[in-house]
Amino acid sequence: MTTYGDLSIVPRTLLGPGPSDVHPRVLQALAYPPVGHLDPQFLNLMNEVQELLRFVFQTENSLTIPVSGTGTAGMEAAFANFVEPGDSVLIGVNGYFSERMVDMAGRYGAVVRRLERPWGEVFTPEEIEDALRAQPAKLVALVHAETSTGALQPLAEIAGIVHRYGSLLLADCVTSLGGLPVQIDAWDVDIAYSGTQKCIGAPPGLAPLTIGPRAREALEKRTTKVPNWYLDLTTVAQYWGAARTYHHTAPINMNYALREALRMIQEEGLEARFARHQAHAELLWAGLEEMDIGLHVEPQYRLPTLTTVRVPAGVDEMAVRKTLLERYNVEIGGGLGALKGQVWRVGLMGYSSQQKNVTLLLAALREILGR
Amino acid sequence: MTTYGDLSIVPRTLLGPGPSDVHPRVLQALAYPPVGHLDPQFLNLMNEVQELLRFVFQTENSLTIPVSGTGTAGMEAAFANFVEPGDSVLIGVNGYFSERMVDMAGRYGAVVRRLERPWGEVFTPEEIEDALRAQPAKLVALVHAETSTGALQPLAEIAGIVHRYGSLLLADCVTSLGGLPVQIDAWDVDIAYSGTQKCIGAPPGLAPLTIGPRAREALEKRTTKVPNWYLDLTTVAQYWGAARTYHHTAPINMNYALREALRMIQEEGLEARFARHQAHAELLWAGLEEMDIGLHVEPQYRLPTLTTVRVPAGVDEMAVRKTLLERYNVEIGGGLGALKGQVWRVGLMGYSSQQKNVTLLLAALREILGR
Repeated sequence: MTTYGDLSIVPRTLLGPGPSDVHPRVLQALAYPPVGHLDPQFLNLMNEVQELLRFVFQTENSLTIPVSGTGTAGMEAAFANFVEPGDSVLIGVNGYFSERMVDMAGRYGAVVRRLERPWGEVFTPEEIEDALRAQPAKLVALVHAETSTGALQPLAEIAGIVHRYGSLLLADCVTSLGGLPVQIDAWDVDIAYSGTQKCIGAPPGLAPLTIGPRAREALEKRTTKVPNWYLDLTTVAQYWGAARTYHHTAPINMNYALREALRMIQEEGLEARFARHQAHAELLWAGLEEMDIGLHVEPQYRLPTLTTVRVPAGVDEMAVRKTLLERYNVEIGGGLGALKGQVWRVGLMGYSSQQKNVTLLLAALREILGR
Repeated sequence: MTTYGDLSIVPRTLLGPGPSDVHPRVLQALAYPPVGHLDPQFLNLMNEVQELLRFVFQTENSLTIPVSGTGTAGMEAAFANFVEPGDSVLIGVNGYFSERMVDMAGRYGAVVRRLERPWGEVFTPEEIEDALRAQPAKLVALVHAETSTGALQPLAEIAGIVHRYGSLLLADCVTSLGGLPVQIDAWDVDIAYSGTQKCIGAPPGLAPLTIGPRAREALEKRTTKVPNWYLDLTTVAQYWGAARTYHHTAPINMNYALREALRMIQEEGLEARFARHQAHAELLWAGLEEMDIGLHVEPQYRLPTLTTVRVPAGVDEMAVRKTLLERYNVEIGGGLGALKGQVWRVGLMGYSSQQKNVTLLLAALREILGR
């Protein structure tokens, strides 16, 4: 059979929708020899990871853990645990990942109601209230930071409304956590998840998840078993809680890496980190404007972490991405779903959010586009 | 809030039921900077990982992939995709992980029939045939290598019987793949999964899975959507197949590590690797016998990768494990479920299967037990 050589990969600068670049300190932690998942040293590290995740989520929720899969496993854990067959779920659909929520919730037997907005726009508190007044729901699901559109959905006011109508609020924070404010307790979000490979600055492989008191109560009141063994929070919580009951083997090395990435967030400080993401995004936006290239999302709802850039008329968007990758070793993303072919997606997240990356990308685009 | 120091973990020698020690080459590959999950370099690496997995599984199955989770995610993928509500599933229950199968299959709506054997024993082809003759089943599930008991379930003859009765054969190979023969095609197993952290020699985080032609046909004939979005093989297969359609972000770095671990298996050769595992297991067994310590499983069904050691009368099994860990930095496992308190579990898997580890463990046990 074929024999294979040493791992040989040309490093890239990752400025797409994720994964983002990973700091050498995090890669070094990743490569530390594993210990057992019940080793007291690992149990101690789990406590630290949980404490640090609470810090980044800005929450006191005891059930705050890294789910053993990538971001989508976080979404799956959210729907698997909080939907029972026949439950009514209201989903704000304005992008690729909210469409994924619709599909996923349906698989768990939810009666899904779609509230729709064009891709790149967000929902007003009034729209959510009108929808709940018309018909109640057990769960309202929104994407805080839509990776497919670059739009930022404000949540604080909506959370109050959702609770007034007796619903739980579930938020997808995959492209926000660690890059812009995610205030689980202050906003009163019940269920939120993210991924490690975007603004957190670790490789892909874990999905931070936090569950608030109302949601825990709902979990305890389930009348059916969670139809997903691997992601069943009623049992996973016993491994991450005081009992430390074996559930499944945790991805040990990914937890080493996550701890280091979270520690770097703590060192930088949340406010400074958010300001850095905002400043580099604004540099990018100004540079694109100078080149007369438009942005897809209105300024007031524009994500600092992921920018959807309108492909200028007459430009072959795929050829530009190919040139960026092959000649410059820079990755940016193409459009997904409704925005396919219409936008590029530029991520400035975690360690990728650096002045030098903005300068490089703008200069490379100028060379390629001749602007 | 608390601040946290550098990652500071005392390395262990991992001789428990997994994770096992990881070779420095694999850890080095793990720490290589990530590229995007649609980068042509990563797509090429995915092809290599699949080829190498087919080599280790001894199969031509095109749908042979690493599932994005630890070993239990492999089990979950197997049941989520091949069970529809009302399907009859026959499970051979003779240990902790076959009990897990029962729980999991039930969550997917299976009508589960238990065929039981004491923990540490295995099923004869006749028993399987009698059970299927009495009542057919869509799926027969067995654990090839029971991590909780140390027993090895022969599969070749059973596969023929299972197919004669029109059923699919599902095998848990978590503690066998890469450490002893797993011949998917020669034995004609339809669905098999494993974990990366045992005999494969990589950290935990991926679950190798292979699906044969009969099972693929069954998948295509499903009348309901797979009730698990993250592990839905009908869509995951499109990312791992020619289309390369984005499904979820793959754990990039874990795939680097898996490639390197599989490459090392190829370099060593399967036969040589199995012989190494067998030889070190026999050394361990002989050494324990010399100390007058018994083994739980009959020689003809004894796993070379995981040995269940009977705790001698009057010995505090937990104190021995604690001393091994704290004084010698050696990890072994305790008993699970029905064998709790009665056995130690000693794994000699992957990079942990070395002469020096056998010698060390026997010597340490002699010191601790005074034998």
